[in-house]
Amino acid sequence: MNSPSLDFETAVFDKEYVALGDRREAIVRGGRHLFDRLPAAFEGVRQIGVIGWGSQGPAQAQNLRDSLGDSVKVVVGLRSGSRSKGAAEAVGFREEDGTLGEMFDVIAASDMVLLLISDAAQAEHYREIFAALRPGTTLGLSHGFLLGHLGDVGETFPPGVDVVAVCPKGMGPSVRALYEQGATVNGAGINASFAVEQDVTGRATERALGWSVALGAPYTFQTTLESEYLSDLSGERAMLLAGVHGIVESLYRRYQSQGMTPDDAFRHSVETVTGPVSRIISKDGLLGLYHRLDGTDREVFAQAYSAAYPVSLELTAEIYDEVRSGNEIRSVVLAGHRLARFPMGKIDRAEMWKVGQRVRAERSEDREAPLDPFTAGVFCGVMMGQVDVLLEQGHPYSEIANESVIEAVDSLNPYMHARGIAHMVDNCSTTARLGARKWAPRFDYLLTQQSYPAVDDKEVDPAPFAAFEQHVIHGVLRTCAEMRPSVDIFVE
Amino acid sequence: MNSPSLDFETAVFDKEYVALGDRREAIVRGGRHLFDRLPAAFEGVRQIGVIGWGSQGPAQAQNLRDSLGDSVKVVVGLRSGSRSKGAAEAVGFREEDGTLGEMFDVIAASDMVLLLISDAAQAEHYREIFAALRPGTTLGLSHGFLLGHLGDVGETFPPGVDVVAVCPKGMGPSVRALYEQGATVNGAGINASFAVEQDVTGRATERALGWSVALGAPYTFQTTLESEYLSDLSGERAMLLAGVHGIVESLYRRYQSQGMTPDDAFRHSVETVTGPVSRIISKDGLLGLYHRLDGTDREVFAQAYSAAYPVSLELTAEIYDEVRSGNEIRSVVLAGHRLARFPMGKIDRAEMWKVGQRVRAERSEDREAPLDPFTAGVFCGVMMGQVDVLLEQGHPYSEIANESVIEAVDSLNPYMHARGIAHMVDNCSTTARLGARKWAPRFDYLLTQQSYPAVDDKEVDPAPFAAFEQHVIHGVLRTCAEMRPSVDIFVE
Repeated sequence: MNSPSLDFETAVFDKEYVALGDRREAIVRGGRHLFDRLPAAFEGVRQIGVIGWGSQGPAQAQNLRDSLGDSVKVVVGLRSGSRSKGAAEAVGFREEDGTLGEMFDVIAASDMVLLLISDAAQAEHYREIFAALRPGTTLGLSHGFLLGHLGDVGETFPPGVDVVAVCPKGMGPSVRALYEQGATVNGAGINASFAVEQDVTGRATERALGWSVALGAPYTFQTTLESEYLSDLSGERAMLLAGVHGIVESLYRRYQSQGMTPDDAFRHSVETVTGPVSRIISKDGLLGLYHRLDGTDREVFAQAYSAAYPVSLELTAEIYDEVRSGNEIRSVVLAGHRLARFPMGKIDRAEMWKVGQRVRAERSEDREAPLDPFTAGVFCGVMMGQVDVLLEQGHPYSEIANESVIEAVDSLNPYMHARGIAHMVDNCSTTARLGARKWAPRFDYLLTQQSYPAVDDKEVDPAPFAAFEQHVIHGVLRTCAEMRPSVDIFVE
Repeated sequence: MNSPSLDFETAVFDKEYVALGDRREAIVRGGRHLFDRLPAAFEGVRQIGVIGWGSQGPAQAQNLRDSLGDSVKVVVGLRSGSRSKGAAEAVGFREEDGTLGEMFDVIAASDMVLLLISDAAQAEHYREIFAALRPGTTLGLSHGFLLGHLGDVGETFPPGVDVVAVCPKGMGPSVRALYEQGATVNGAGINASFAVEQDVTGRATERALGWSVALGAPYTFQTTLESEYLSDLSGERAMLLAGVHGIVESLYRRYQSQGMTPDDAFRHSVETVTGPVSRIISKDGLLGLYHRLDGTDREVFAQAYSAAYPVSLELTAEIYDEVRSGNEIRSVVLAGHRLARFPMGKIDRAEMWKVGQRVRAERSEDREAPLDPFTAGVFCGVMMGQVDVLLEQGHPYSEIANESVIEAVDSLNPYMHARGIAHMVDNCSTTARLGARKWAPRFDYLLTQQSYPAVDDKEVDPAPFAAFEQHVIHGVLRTCAEMRPSVDIFVE
């Protein structure tokens, strides 16, 4: 991918340039005070159809309805016989008042169609969906999978419609939970990227920005659909889901083999990552985490960082190659065909995650999760491996920061902290769940086979940590953090 | 893949039909007493060029030279500047006598060219290699990767040459070691499959069979190049390398969490698999292994079998899909481009494999490796998952038995028993090594997340083991075992 040179025009919202490291990027800040501009952003749109009720569907349908009030009708479209009908009804979408319907009926009747069905379903049904879109409709996606799949099968989007994307940098439940917090804390929310792939109405940018603001995004940055799907699929397969899972599995074993009890090993691996490490990075960035440590702990951190970083660089480069080549998308489509015969198994029946249930139940105010410096170093090393792969590939800084750091510490890890890994992974899309199951064991094995022996044998090359303190990402994260109040995500 | 309906004609060797389960398959038995027929098989061939010195190259070049004597000249071809030159010289291939040369010179001067360079090198250089082949040359492959790659890039073999394959069902060092044992034990050797993809000379079948007999294959069965590469790539990614690696890693952890010392856990996982389990299956088949156990142990075996089988069926089906779709071949080609920047890491620095070194060093006659029934059950369950996937896909019985069972117990596991997993994995092709590193952790995780909790929670569905005792594979293995003396592979 080449570094996209991006900018956009908006008459409805206030575009700002923010200095990010050595670049500037155009963004739009969000907030509830902008909701009165939404009718202007959605000019010409009487109905938005939200198609699908998976991870993003419930969050986006409710946020849009709450933000838009009476100005635009929000209708949920499900395939007939969908098992999600009850769930949609439970939060107020009803056939009686025309806010719930069969998906193809809703598609045909909407001026803007947000396609939030699973990637496998998109791959299977895109022809019928395209055929149901009226000319001049704005088709909205929440990530770029379909672009990748169309490229793979040699097809394109229909020429007569807008194609835009708004991609929240967090899983659906976080998009809803932080929006609700936003009622009392203005600016709470999940950042989003937007992209305009086709603009036949001349309104595509305004509609995309309106969509993002209505979802509650504290700030919205620009990308392309291709850049989005490369970074999104790679990010969840690397740091965000697979990486963090592989890290904690490998550390849980390591700490036990060093003599810790299972419960303590769980505290020093999982609880450290999802508790203090994520909380400190969210507020003070990666460098802030390092500076929180003292003397010896800083050395331990640096060793662990330098040992873990090369493994992540190697594996994330592999993941990126697999995504860009189309292999990963084809794998997801093939897996979709096998799911009826082989449903995805559970993660949390394994002994480690039963220990986790016990540890979470025994949490108390006086017993803070430890800030283990080795765990913190491994976590940051893996994170920075991904940052550097995305930098090499020319992604926008905002995208890199959100796909590598912010989504982890503000959306995913808090869910993992509250409910365990299975809950976190399994509240993401099927594509993400498949990717997490595929790549987590690879992170685990490489850390175990390469990083930890290097530490134990005192053969760690210190170069990665030496580059860490001067890294451009710290300035980028500082700017991102200034753009929204630091709200701790609340998970019941 | 459809079940190929195969047969062949040979005037030089003795074709036999053997009853395998409910089918019959045409095969050719080997043996040193047939070496005097090799000049007839290679009629028209004055020189065989063996290109490459990786896993198969050294074994095949030496076996061919020893078997052919003066009747056909065997010349090793290496790229200029190859680091393997010294190794080839050390076993008697010399520039001075024209038995060692630059690869393209050797290709152009040979009547039969055995292309045993790495898959990545084949993918990179096939155009120049095809251009160097004289019309009427017989191009020989030792597995079907190149066919898969050509399909992927939309190209074909050059029309003016024979294309045949002889694919030993073992890694190069075993092909050599068992050939040497064959000097005293007639019939010792590694089975091979053969395929004729193009026959312009009318001699392709005889040359392929001659090649296989000269390598020392106890018996040679027929396949197609497509069937070979699907089963070969799938087999090494499933049971043969990744499966066995994932099994023993997961069991080593499980036994320790149940209270065993690391050394005992290693004995009950790795030593059980590579020692008694492999030895008994080699002689008496899978059913023979089960019958070796008594009362309670049979129940433990059956539980473990039924718990492991579904995981293997699921994962091997995924692997097969990935191979057939071309994803796996593209992954190998992409990995080849990354290897200069990210060389493959070592497996055996991890703590488990250091324990293994110690355990191997402490072996003694009076301390036999234990025949742990749980380990045996998991091993057989994973093996049978692969057998059933290959059966579903219509592969010949010989191919299934060799790619799933015989190659494991007669070639790979004995090396692992002698020298550890890293030695075994790293003496296979780069393609196989990449596949082992990719898929082993998946077997490990699925066994840990699904199979073992099912056993511990007493929720194992007994259906897989119920189907085991009546399985067609047992009769196939019995016939295969009758076709060669049961020689224990000797590894220094």
